[in-house]
Amino acid sequence: MHIEIVTIGDELLLGFTIDTNAAHIARELASLGVRIVRRATCGDDADAIAAAVREALDRTGAVITTGGLGPTADDMTKPAIASIFGKGMVMDADILAGLEERWRRRFGHALPVSNRQQALVPEGCTILPNRHGSAPGIWLEDGRGRWVAMFPGVPRELRGMLADTLIPRLRDRLPNDGPVIRSRTLRTANIAESALADRLGDLARGVNGLPLAFLPGNDGVDLRLTSWVLPAREAEATLDAAAARIRGKVDRFIYGEGDDDLAALMLAECAARNLTIAVAESCTGGMLGQRLTAIPGSSRSVQGGVIAYANDVKIRELGVPAEAIDTHGAVSREVALAMATGVRQRFGTGVGIGITGIAGPDGGTLEKPVGTVWVAIDLEGEVRAVRALLPGNRAEIRYRAAQLALDRLRLMLTRTVEDGENGWTAQGTETGPQTP
Amino acid sequence: MHIEIVTIGDELLLGFTIDTNAAHIARELASLGVRIVRRATCGDDADAIAAAVREALDRTGAVITTGGLGPTADDMTKPAIASIFGKGMVMDADILAGLEERWRRRFGHALPVSNRQQALVPEGCTILPNRHGSAPGIWLEDGRGRWVAMFPGVPRELRGMLADTLIPRLRDRLPNDGPVIRSRTLRTANIAESALADRLGDLARGVNGLPLAFLPGNDGVDLRLTSWVLPAREAEATLDAAAARIRGKVDRFIYGEGDDDLAALMLAECAARNLTIAVAESCTGGMLGQRLTAIPGSSRSVQGGVIAYANDVKIRELGVPAEAIDTHGAVSREVALAMATGVRQRFGTGVGIGITGIAGPDGGTLEKPVGTVWVAIDLEGEVRAVRALLPGNRAEIRYRAAQLALDRLRLMLTRTVEDGENGWTAQGTETGPQTP
Repeated sequence: MHIEIVTIGDELLLGFTIDTNAAHIARELASLGVRIVRRATCGDDADAIAAAVREALDRTGAVITTGGLGPTADDMTKPAIASIFGKGMVMDADILAGLEERWRRRFGHALPVSNRQQALVPEGCTILPNRHGSAPGIWLEDGRGRWVAMFPGVPRELRGMLADTLIPRLRDRLPNDGPVIRSRTLRTANIAESALADRLGDLARGVNGLPLAFLPGNDGVDLRLTSWVLPAREAEATLDAAAARIRGKVDRFIYGEGDDDLAALMLAECAARNLTIAVAESCTGGMLGQRLTAIPGSSRSVQGGVIAYANDVKIRELGVPAEAIDTHGAVSREVALAMATGVRQRFGTGVGIGITGIAGPDGGTLEKPVGTVWVAIDLEGEVRAVRALLPGNRAEIRYRAAQLALDRLRLMLTRTVEDGENGWTAQGTETGPQTP
Repeated sequence: MHIEIVTIGDELLLGFTIDTNAAHIARELASLGVRIVRRATCGDDADAIAAAVREALDRTGAVITTGGLGPTADDMTKPAIASIFGKGMVMDADILAGLEERWRRRFGHALPVSNRQQALVPEGCTILPNRHGSAPGIWLEDGRGRWVAMFPGVPRELRGMLADTLIPRLRDRLPNDGPVIRSRTLRTANIAESALADRLGDLARGVNGLPLAFLPGNDGVDLRLTSWVLPAREAEATLDAAAARIRGKVDRFIYGEGDDDLAALMLAECAARNLTIAVAESCTGGMLGQRLTAIPGSSRSVQGGVIAYANDVKIRELGVPAEAIDTHGAVSREVALAMATGVRQRFGTGVGIGITGIAGPDGGTLEKPVGTVWVAIDLEGEVRAVRALLPGNRAEIRYRAAQLALDRLRLMLTRTVEDGENGWTAQGTETGPQTP
């Protein structure tokens, strides 16, 4: 099944709004084996909508639209598409009753006459209920099985309605055992793309017939396997086998799958072991604390921490020896270790994490260039520190420093890890240098 | 001048990549008065590219493409579009020399024969130099003045090349005094959309003939004025006058314009007054510190702070009286004030900021529902606290709490502000309740 998407709205054409709906629809439908073969965007203009949808319908016979279903005069999707099907507009009693009820409850008065037009729908259409907002979707189909499904443009509503209405409807029309597109993502942290490729050897070019994509980002390098041509069950089995082969080579660097967030995983791991956490952050300035506390229920493990941006604060609040800063500098193994142990002892936690580094753009030296970061973990008195030279701009270096700290905690919780161990590499780019 | 955009790439159609290029192009061209009238996306397929570009060219005679210019076999934009113009491909000696030089310098060996195809270009085209990456852009035009401009899909490269090559080229073709689209955004914080509309009165429906858009987001409600039909100079003058009228009504709530970041503004303001800053964060868990230290040079003002997630930490590290927590609860005026003053005294700074609240999803009560936040500022001994009931999910409440604190600091630095003043409203949605 091939489908085209038409997204509608002046805001999209003007670039004031980024179109995320089209990508969401594409990903959801790919997992059913449905390919999006073209996408178009047009403004809030009845002729432009009718032209774009008619052309798409002529090519594929199956079109999804987003936007232009709201109450304002701009919203012309329904009549424009009704005209393509040679249909008029009729008042839908259920929608009208819902609108009247909503206005009474919310604004305490009757529906204004000008808003009654929201209840007009193309004759002969099917209403797609919207549990996530006020404007329902519309399904319009002709005698030859050509159809258009119209959804609101609000991303949250679109997402909910896709799952509620479109996916089940399409699934019913698809062969049970047709080919689907399925993918599996293995998330790695703190290893450069080139170093991952070296370790994977032949697998870097594909695994069990599946292509392997390297997707570097701030979290690390994601490895994505995709099955394009197999039916669902075979696709899953092939992905399982391929993922296992990749784990066989680089398991140590893999922290999760799919959308896994390393902070959430570490929080769950600490909670399971009754380990409390305190952080001491210099260059990240609160980002690690922010990431950990972003997760609901984090108060079970996270006690808090110290944002030790100034050296005085490191000395006074964390007990970092002034001599350590004088002798080795604020970005050093000694200071990172003193921060981790200092915050753990002071806060009486199981885990103490210290981060100090040079995020730039200024402050780098020949010996310690911008991107130099020291991370230390104190896990119930067992201490480990590591240095990395992180690539990117200030924001990227800070984010990667927090990710490095979380990944270092992961290794200490799950494996034997040596202090400043070899093979520990900076993440991010092909040229990300090794750390000592 | 009307233009269509065609973005090219399987990753876009599959939804693995969000198309941000089209929006960027639209915004840049709008400021020249050029309208994007339609946008299409197709996959890495020569026939699909040729079809989409030919249709767009037939409608407007002016098309911009992104993607498909790289070295891999997927990249077919150049030959597909050359075929529309009835042109063959020829080897460009300068591009070839550049590639050979690049390979020698970067990889230490000669350009592989298979990579020579990157230097093939449509005959009779103009090369658009790329100072931001390796693949140059292509400008192809026929005798009737119909043209296609091809750019790489990498956003950073596209943005640079647009400014370097396309904008000057289009400016030369446009009348000097034609209509342009210009907009002006005034950024407000901590006032609900409905309360803003009430204060603006008639202006909410448009100012000096310019439409006014209300754009609520996590930072607050942005007010965007847009001039659609005036020449550049008149547009700017009309926007100036309209912005001044808006300021006349709601100046107190406006913290900046355009892309202004409230954290950056407050940091600059504190630096100008030689005020140092320390933060005490409970529900935000480090987010305020993170936002302040995201700005280069923040170490001049930010000393650091305490992430006081657990009550013990509030008592021990910030000197919050245990009785205050017992009597009033951790989310209370008394605790916020003790946090702000505690962190200011402890860190010896000019400014102390305390934030405590219930970010949810659990932990709310009838008296203090999820979203209840107390913020306190201690500015050289002058203390003010405010309560807000912030709308949204956990992430939104946390972000808005940090924004509330920054905005409260702005008011204390720039105006007379009373403690718990009336009219101080929660930001965000139409239903955002007033605070006492």
